[in-house]
Parts: sequence; structure tokens; C-alpha cells
Amino acid sequence: MTNFCSDNASGAAPEIIEALAKANAGAAMPYGDDDWTRRVEARLQQIFETDCRVFPVATGTAANVLGLSLLTPPYGAVYCHEEAHVNIDECGAPEFYTGGAKLVALPGAHGKLSPEALAAAITGAGNQSRVQPAAVSLSQATEAGTVYRPPEVAAIAEVARAHGLGLQMDGARFANALVSLGCTPAEVTWKAGVDVLSFGATKNGAMAAEAVVLFRPELAESLPYRRKQGGHLFSKMRFLSAQLEAYLEDDLWLALAARANASARRLADGLAAIPGACLVHPVEANEIFCRLPEAMIDGLLADGFQFYRWGAPAASEVRLVCAFERTEVEVDAFLAAARHLAGTADAAAVSA
Amino acid sequence: MTNFCSDNASGAAPEIIEALAKANAGAAMPYGDDDWTRRVEARLQQIFETDCRVFPVATGTAANVLGLSLLTPPYGAVYCHEEAHVNIDECGAPEFYTGGAKLVALPGAHGKLSPEALAAAITGAGNQSRVQPAAVSLSQATEAGTVYRPPEVAAIAEVARAHGLGLQMDGARFANALVSLGCTPAEVTWKAGVDVLSFGATKNGAMAAEAVVLFRPELAESLPYRRKQGGHLFSKMRFLSAQLEAYLEDDLWLALAARANASARRLADGLAAIPGACLVHPVEANEIFCRLPEAMIDGLLADGFQFYRWGAPAASEVRLVCAFERTEVEVDAFLAAARHLAGTADAAAVSA
Amino acid sequence: MTNFCSDNASGAAPEIIEALAKANAGAAMPYGDDDWTRRVEARLQQIFETDCRVFPVATGTAANVLGLSLLTPPYGAVYCHEEAHVNIDECGAPEFYTGGAKLVALPGAHGKLSPEALAAAITGAGNQSRVQPAAVSLSQATEAGTVYRPPEVAAIAEVARAHGLGLQMDGARFANALVSLGCTPAEVTWKAGVDVLSFGATKNGAMAAEAVVLFRPELAESLPYRRKQGGHLFSKMRFLSAQLEAYLEDDLWLALAARANASARRLADGLAAIPGACLVHPVEANEIFCRLPEAMIDGLLADGFQFYRWGAPAASEVRLVCAFERTEVEVDAFLAAARHLAGTADAAAVSA
Amino acid sequence: MTNFCSDNASGAAPEIIEALAKANAGAAMPYGDDDWTRRVEARLQQIFETDCRVFPVATGTAANVLGLSLLTPPYGAVYCHEEAHVNIDECGAPEFYTGGAKLVALPGAHGKLSPEALAAAITGAGNQSRVQPAAVSLSQATEAGTVYRPPEVAAIAEVARAHGLGLQMDGARFANALVSLGCTPAEVTWKAGVDVLSFGATKNGAMAAEAVVLFRPELAESLPYRRKQGGHLFSKMRFLSAQLEAYLEDDLWLALAARANASARRLADGLAAIPGACLVHPVEANEIFCRLPEAMIDGLLADGFQFYRWGAPAASEVRLVCAFERTEVEVDAFLAAARHLAGTADAAAVSA
Repeated sequence: MTNFCSDNASGAAPEIIEALAKANAGAAMPYGDDDWTRRVEARLQQIFETDCRVFPVATGTAANVLGLSLLTPPYGAVYCHEEAHVNIDECGAPEFYTGGAKLVALPGAHGKLSPEALAAAITGAGNQSRVQPAAVSLSQATEAGTVYRPPEVAAIAEVARAHGLGLQMDGARFANALVSLGCTPAEVTWKAGVDVLSFGATKNGAMAAEAVVLFRPELAESLPYRRKQGGHLFSKMRFLSAQLEAYLEDDLWLALAARANASARRLADGLAAIPGACLVHPVEANEIFCRLPEAMIDGLLADGFQFYRWGAPAASEVRLVCAFERTEVEVDAFLAAARHLAGTADAAAVSA
Repeated sequence: MTNFCSDNASGAAPEIIEALAKANAGAAMPYGDDDWTRRVEARLQQIFETDCRVFPVATGTAANVLGLSLLTPPYGAVYCHEEAHVNIDECGAPEFYTGGAKLVALPGAHGKLSPEALAAAITGAGNQSRVQPAAVSLSQATEAGTVYRPPEVAAIAEVARAHGLGLQMDGARFANALVSLGCTPAEVTWKAGVDVLSFGATKNGAMAAEAVVLFRPELAESLPYRRKQGGHLFSKMRFLSAQLEAYLEDDLWLALAARANASARRLADGLAAIPGACLVHPVEANEIFCRLPEAMIDGLLADGFQFYRWGAPAASEVRLVCAFERTEVEVDAFLAAARHLAGTADAAAVSA
Repeated sequence: MTNFCSDNASGAAPEIIEALAKANAGAAMPYGDDDWTRRVEARLQQIFETDCRVFPVATGTAANVLGLSLLTPPYGAVYCHEEAHVNIDECGAPEFYTGGAKLVALPGAHGKLSPEALAAAITGAGNQSRVQPAAVSLSQATEAGTVYRPPEVAAIAEVARAHGLGLQMDGARFANALVSLGCTPAEVTWKAGVDVLSFGATKNGAMAAEAVVLFRPELAESLPYRRKQGGHLFSKMRFLSAQLEAYLEDDLWLALAARANASARRLADGLAAIPGACLVHPVEANEIFCRLPEAMIDGLLADGFQFYRWGAPAASEVRLVCAFERTEVEVDAFLAAARHLAGTADAAAVSA
Repeated sequence: MTNFCSDNASGAAPEIIEALAKANAGAAMPYGDDDWTRRVEARLQQIFETDCRVFPVATGTAANVLGLSLLTPPYGAVYCHEEAHVNIDECGAPEFYTGGAKLVALPGAHGKLSPEALAAAITGAGNQSRVQPAAVSLSQATEAGTVYRPPEVAAIAEVARAHGLGLQMDGARFANALVSLGCTPAEVTWKAGVDVLSFGATKNGAMAAEAVVLFRPELAESLPYRRKQGGHLFSKMRFLSAQLEAYLEDDLWLALAARANASARRLADGLAAIPGACLVHPVEANEIFCRLPEAMIDGLLADGFQFYRWGAPAASEVRLVCAFERTEVEVDAFLAAARHLAGTADAAAVSA
């Protein structure tokens, strides 16, 4: 049955696998001194319309924490949403990689930081007993499946800049956000004030490939050493870069994200029409958070659909993630089952 | 022209790439909760004849430093050979991952630690101003292309155990060592006293896959968290495990290492017979360290062969690494060129 | 004019200074191998009625973070009140000393953690993406000037123990709490489930001396090395220990705290009777948090009294700390000024 | 009997203790916002003839590692003599405070680094697998009791600067070195290229006080936070600063060091004249390293003199440290005992 647990439950797009096979021919100098890596950097410079620097790594956590380590001293404060992946799901990696920096977790509707909440939280500068404001981290798309519009990013960046803070973007689902926004990659990153981007590919069809993209070239000075000290420098780097190259070629990344988003849209619309189902957040990328009747949740799981319960234990909330490979048929099957259970549940309720 | 720079300059064995393509079918639960990962652990338990615990990661540095982080507190001393990869080539990763432990680098002929030198170096236990003896790290095969025989490992382990130290083995070229030794994997690891092994596959034909193998099960308790905090937990773990599975299947790993070793043997024997060439270390795995006349080094590089000069700038020493895919034809071409240059050099010397 | 800013604004009790002068006679072995240090440990073992281990350090932050470093791995979660000194006022020292652990800050009335809030917050155990529940930190007295009664500590300890967590107590104002509680030192620490205590003396009359007190002897194994690695091992340790010895002699510590608490009690009672003044928290030790009319705050500062505004910028809240040396005369002078301003403020309000 | 174990075995100079008593009068703002701290900075600026920044701490290890943390990233290499305190006697504090930097220990006659050895060791810049050259640490006086002359410091600074490295000086015995050299404090520090100095006072008569002196003002930006994050910010800072103020007043520091050096000179001259005694290093400060007949060592210890054996177990070497308070009478008593034992030893040897 279809897996809606995570975009990580899917494999890789066939083009990515083919690219690996092709990249396997012949010798290549190790540690990034290869043509694939050079081409990926050039391609991302085109895509982002600027001389950004590009460092491939294999995991999203590595990309995030290496990026953050460039923006904060060990005694720094990094402001992020309380549900941010860096705050919740990286097992202390940001604290470890920064040598002790503190994540300051802020609330915010639908997974998004507001400039006002950020501005109010930035305190203690110059007070030697307090961690020093150093950076802001945004997730794009957010952990609630929403996206920041370019002016929203810019408003946060303005607060950051006014206090001398760097701005990092966790783009594990950057492609999904971009497709949803319909803007250019530049508009929602460096033109809006982003300094460092974790350019995610794994969740959207790569096997295991992300890129740390640095929009301020001086940040690139220490990254090679931090990457190696973290154990993230691949000897056969071409296999990371080949994934990224294929991901970018012919806009595959945008096509995959468009498919995932469309599936999510279709699924959200379908669910919204089912009595008892209630969307928790706007569906703006490929994730759906939805409250469902308990009997429907149980029924869907019993039917073999795979997904996670979410939020508080008694919240009757589920998360449904549409991977790049989800099809209309799969989505419709889920909806049909849900509709069927809605009837059943009604019937059960009636007969009870 | 043939690349003898490093086993990292080669791609992956075709079987590995095929395994990735095969592993791409269907959904699989992320973060290691998949069948490939379970099968790899079971297979390595068979191979090592014990209930070891297995944690796949993507780089050798990650495997080494995660392993070491299990064996030493932040105020610990880790004893290793002065040329060890952990000491020289990991950009401070061991210090970083252990929170400040100190590598105590020891000399030793042909890249090998001796039990006597180790015993003499273990000092300061109980002195609160000194880092506390915590672990020993051995490279198998060594950075000098030599191997530790099981009794040699056991002798070092005995010193370690007598002082309460853990024993880690950097097995980036474990297969090459094993084939050279002709013993069982168990005999040269846990039966000889090894606690933690970096089981390398990348240099010997994988794309990017290593396994931290823990022979003391209690060490496994913290590894999942340390791996994640280091950013080394793969979401689509099946792609790491599939590489390892293919690597082990039908003893591919041993076949690849045997080919690399045989090439190195053939190359070493050929070089030894060339006037002016002088092997620096016994050739026991797939690496050759050799002093050559300067004119021969220049000539071989001019001919397009790729390899690194080694040691002190004026040492006229080179390192030649035979990857798993090196062929007799390639080796013979190198030797022919060297022999030709030996003649040329002689002639030049005569005519000068 | 009298300084109510902090107990740190006072100097040391005369007995402490005299003890330093006395300790200066003759040679003594360095690094804690001296009689003062041995006597302090013995005395604290008497006071706590158990074979605790005692490690003098010079700052409260050092005591706290060394203690915490014994209870949590780098990937651990440490639960504390959101206003705890370790969370707010130590500039990331806990994260630094633990190698990356995360402080999980919890709300709680009047500066106190509740067992229920703690139990609800302890999540993620066994989930490799989450920091692992490791320890709880309590402040005694709290940052709100309240104290935990022994059954309250025990209730929190029970939750901690049920989840396998260690319990640390930040006792920067331990003497003030103890005097307020009227229980034995043992009853509110190890008998209630505390594993590690920062036994503070600096705020209560020492020059700069605290002790890390370990109630589980096995924790003492690594502390000497962690203390040295943190740079906190005094060479002339006798001067730390002599302060602590004098602090404990003839129950000086209890007498000093009793005086501070009595001053705070008198001040609180006096304030409570002034129209427009409103105590924010119960006054159970030597700190008072009070809302006052803005005109009164301005007037008291203009009169030369020293204290800090507290809380949100517009909260009209002040913190008044009574150091060990505060006298009734000083307290009464403050109250007289406040009462006078209350009249003025009333008059001003009337005339406005 | 007289203690020659360490300058740490002595107490404090009476002037220091008196200064503490005097500093105890009245309230003072905490955390360094006090007059003593301001006066110490001003006084050291006079003494060093430059606008250096001054940060008091309580231990030499804290001063050293906070200073080093300003000069190296986590992936940096710090070059020092193999016997340096930072390398041997600080239990990994430099690695901990720098987040993983590597101390590269170099040999050198009589405890001193040579510019040639340093230049030869600085390698790997730009190689992402290697720690990056970042800083040099010198001990002044050295661990062998010798001193660097200003041109020697300058020669090392020139090598450091040519490679972009910072230069830190561990001045735990700075006063002893200065008195020995007869130059100005400026000449042997910033004028010779030193960036950061650990200005030691504890070994030379303070109770527990050192100062991190920064000769490049931009380094001062992060030090307050690093000091607090390390737990080294004193709340009642006046008591650190009052020690330093008294130490500097009327050149007490130079008088104390002069006495210690003179005692060492007298002791060294006396020993040199005893048959069988052999000085190991030039005696240029207040430490003497000397080989003595085994029977003489045993005899002196049996007589109750306190000192440490040194070097290899069978080296028959001792270290004798003259603290600031050593008198001619004490030195002469030691020499008389040694001379007596020289006779005894001869007699024993003859009769054997």
C-alpha cells in the first residue's frame, strides 16, 4: 500500500540512478577535484544568478549544521521556529557543530517565524552572561508544509541584518517551496537576504545529496575544513555531484517537486471535502497535516496505508507526505478509502 | 593514463552500482529500519562469527571518529602511529568528535605500532593534569602498506587491556589486509582484542560506504545518537546498506582486494628489479612506497601516469596505489615505461 | 546608598578574609593535595551525613556545568526551568561543557518546575533523531526567590528516576533555601534524590568559592579531569578550601543566610504594606520581586538606592536582593524612602 | 623542610593578602564593572606601553586556553614545544576550548622552539584533509627554566606572521623571564610580535590571579563571552583584580621574581660546584634541572627537602623550583645537605 510516511521512504528518481552509473566510468581525482563537482557549482551559479559557492554533502543535517557553524560562534544564539528540524530532529547536531551555540526556539503560526516575534526575541547583545545573537534559521518549506514568500523572507532578513545576524535557510524541501511560490531561486534566497542555503535533493528524488550553498563568498573559506572535520568530505565526491547534476539537468528537480506538490494538492482538496476531516495548516508544498476521525485513522492504517500520527497523542492528527513519485491513482485510492471509512464511521456512529 | 594516486580515484565496482539500481525499487522505511540494513548486519555477524553490531556510514573519517568517540572521554589520550590517517588526514575530526581528546602519535617502523613503544607511551593515569589513557587506534592495512598479523594485534591489545584502554581498528583497507594475511576476519579483530572496527568498503570498490562494527555490544547504546549528532544518519539508508550487501555478496570484497593486492605485488616485483628503484616498505597490501631516480619520476609523470610524490620534498619517493580495478596490462605498461626511463636515465647520466 | 542589585555586589564576610590570611602560612602541596581541602570534604560529609565527594571551584557556573557534564552525554537533554541560571545566564556554558547537550526550558509558576510539566516534557527516548533525556536541573533557591520543599524535590526526583535521568541542583543560594526550609541539608538533597549539588558560597559571603558535591561516588571518577580540562583546578587550592572551611565553621553559612533572609522578609513585609506595591513571587529566601509604581522606581533610583528593573521593559517590576550583610537599618531606610515616594506619587497623581 | 617542588606550593605574598582585605570594604558592581578591574587594565597598559586589553582569570590554564581560542579555529594547528604546559599539563584543555584544534608538538633544545623547526613544521595550508596552521604558543620562561630573548621571540613571530599565524605567550613565569632578560615588558611581547599573553601572577606570589592580555584589540571582542562560557567570569571580580593591582604596585612583581631568580642562581651555582651534580639546562629563571647521584637524591629527600624527580625514571634528574619567598638561608641549607651527601656518597662508593 502507498507510503505517505515521508519523502524519505521513497527511493531515488531513475535519472539519478542512471547518472550514478554513468559517473562510474574511468578515474577521477578524489575529494571534489573532479568535473562533476565543478559542473554542479557552475550550474547552481546559473540557477541562483550569482557567484555562490557550492559544497556537496550527503545528509540534510550535515548541510544545516555546517552552514550554521559558519554563522555563529560557540557562544551564539540561533533563532528558529520551535518545530524546526534543527531544533527537534537533529539530535543536538547544531549545538555540537557550533561548539555550544544555543537554539532559541520561537513559536509561530503554521510553522513560520514572524519578524515581530524574532525582533522581540533578540536580546542580550553585549551582556557577557548571555549567549550572543548570531543567526536565524528558516525552513523552506516549513515543517508545517507552508512556505515563506520572498517578502516574508526579506522582512525576517531585515530584522536579522539590523541586529547583525546571519540568515540560514534549511531547504530540505526547497524545490517544493520554489515550485509553490513560482518565483526564481534568487528571489527567495540571496535577493531576500539569505546568506547560507541547505539546498536539499534527497527528499525530492536524490539518493543522498544536498549542497551547502554560500551566497557570501567569504564564508567559503572555512567550509572545506569544517566539512572534513565533520567527516563529511566524500573521497569519491563525483557520486555526490553526479546526483546533483542529474537533479538539476533539464529542471528535473522542479518537475519532481511539481509532481509531489500536485499530489499533495489533490490529496488535500480531496480530504477537505470529507466530513470530519480538517486541514491543520495551509497545504503549500508536499506535506499535509490533517485531523481525521479516530476511526478513519485506524481504518486507513488497517487498510495498509502508511503514514504517521502527528502532534499530541490525543490530537487525532496525521501527517501525509507526498513523495516525488506519488501518482494520482495512489492519491485517489487513499481518498476513496477515506471516503469509504467516512461512510463507515458515520454508519458506526449511527448504529452505536 | 593509469591512475595510481589513490584507490579513491577509481569509481565503484559494477556490482555495487547494480545493487543501488536494484535497491531503488519500492518504498522502504527510512533511517535504517529497512531490510538491506538488517541483512548487512546479519551477514557481517556471520563473517565475523560473533554478534557484532553494525552501523553503516558514508565516509571512513566518520567511521573512525564515531568509533573513537565510544572509547574515550573528552580528556582522554588515544595512542596511534604518527602516520595514522586519524592523526594526519582527518583535519582534527577525532579531536572534534571526542570533545577534546588528544592523539598521542608514536613512531614505529613501516607504519606499525609496537607493543613496546605503546607500553612506554602510556603514562599519566590518575594524574589530573594529564590526559587519561583511553584508547589505541591501529590502521589495518597501515598507511605504509603493511599489515598487522593476528599475534601482533593481540600483543598490542594485551598492552591496551592491561591499562584499561579500548582498541579501535581503522580498516579503510581491511579487505586488502585480510587477503594478505590469509586469516579469518575474526582472528584479526575481536579474537585478537579489537573492540571497534571501521570496516571500509569505499576504497575497495564501494561508492561511499563503510560500517562501524562494534564487537562489544554495550558500545552500541550511544552510537545511533552520536551518528545522528554528527550528521551521519542517512535517511535513505538502504542505499548505504545495499552497497555493503553487494560488497559482501559472493565474497566480492575479497575478490576485489585480491586483485588489487596482486597488482601491487606485480608492480612491486617489477620495480624491485629496476636499477635505482628501492622499495621503502614491505609491500603487503595494495600500496607501494618506492624511491625512484628523479628523472624516472619526472619521466613517468610526463608519460601521463598519475601518482603522488611522498615523504620529504627531496626524498625522491613515490606512492603507488593499486585500486581494485587495476589490470596486469596497466601494471606492465607502467613497468615498461619505468624500465625504459631507467635506460634513458642511465644514458642521460652517461652522456652528461 | 544601599546596593540591592545582587548578593554579588557585596564583598566577603570578614571571617572568610581572615581565613585566607591564616591559610597563607607555610608551604602546602598544590592542586588539592592539602589539609584544607581534606578538611572541607570531611566537614561536608558530616553536614550532609553521607560519604559525598567534594570538589572546590571558584565560580557557580563552573560548579553547575561540571556537575551537568557528569550527567549527560553530548546528545542529551537537560530539563530545567525557563528562567534557570544555566539556561539564561551562563552564556552557553552548559552546552559547551557537555559537548552539545540541549537545555529543554520549561515554564513553571514562581520559578519552580512541576513534576507534571517535567513528566510531560520527557519525550524522544530511543528516537535516534532526538536528544536523549539525560538530566534535570533545579535551582535551590530558585531564580524567583522561592524554594523547593523536600517533598517537592522528591516528586521531581521520582519522575527523573523513572526515566533514568540524573538530578542536579544549582545551589548558588543553597544556604538561603536551607535556612528558609528548616530541614537538614541531607533531607533536601540526596535523601530527596539529588545526585549532584553546586554548593554555593560566593553569593552568601565567600570571596569566590563553590563546591561540586557528588552524592553518587562513581560520578567522582571523571570530575578531576573535567575540572582540569575546564581550567578550573586551582594550583593553590588551599585558598579555595580555606574559604569553604571558614564558611562552614561554627555554622557561619547558616548565620549569614539567616541574616539575608531576615532582611528580605522585613523588606517584603514592609513593601507589601505600601499602596501600589505588589509582590510578584512568594519571598522565601533573600530575593524580592515586586511591582512598584513607575514614579516610585524612579524616585528610589534617584535617591541613590541600587537595584535592577526586572522582567519585560514595561512591567514596572524590580528585583531586590538582600546580601548577607544587609542590616535592618538599611532595609528600613529603603522602606521609608518608598513610603515617602508612595505619598509623593499619590500626591502627584492627585494633583495631575 | 624547604619545599622546592613548585612555586605553587608557596602561599601568597603578604601584600596580596592585605590587598584582598582592603578590597573587601563596601559594595562594588559585579562581573568586572568595578574600579579595581579598571585600574589593573590601565596599569598594565602603562607597563606594556600600549592600549592592550586585560581580562583577569583565576588559573593559568584558563588564561592559556582562552587566549588560544582567539587564535585558532576548531580545525587549526597550534605549534608548541613538546614540553609546553599547554601540551602536557592541561589535560586537553586547549583541544576542548578550541573545539578540536590540534597541538603540534615540536622538539627543541632547552625547552625552546627554534624558528627553523617551526618553519619546517608548518605544512598543510590549504589541504582540506589537514588541520590548518593557526597559531604558535611559546612559554616564557620555558618549562626548562630558560628564557626567550626578544630577538628570539621576534624570529619566531616572523615565521608565524609569514604564514598568517597568531602568536600566544604562556607567561606563567613571565615576571621571572622579564627580570632575567632585563628588557621592557613591551620589548619581549608585542614589540617582538606577540598577540596574546597569559600574564601570570599566581606562581609569583598571587593567590590565584592571571590576566589574559590582548595586544590586538579586535581579539577582545569575543573574549568576554568565551570567558563566561568557560565558567571563568568572577562575580566578585574585584578580588581577582585587587590581587593583580597589588602585584603590580611598586613593582612588587619584579621584586618577587628577582628574589626567586636570585635564589635559583645561588642554588644553581652551588650545585654546579658539587661533584656528581650536573645542570641539565641553563638556569635563566627560577627553575633548576639537575642530575644528581641517586644516593644524593635519596638522601636529600630523607633529610626532608621536598622536590620532584624529573624526566625518565632512571635519569637521576630532579627539578628544583625557587618560589618568590625562598631565602638564602634555605638555599644554603639545601646546598650544605647536598655537599654533605656528596661526601657520604663518595664514602659509600669507596666502601662498597
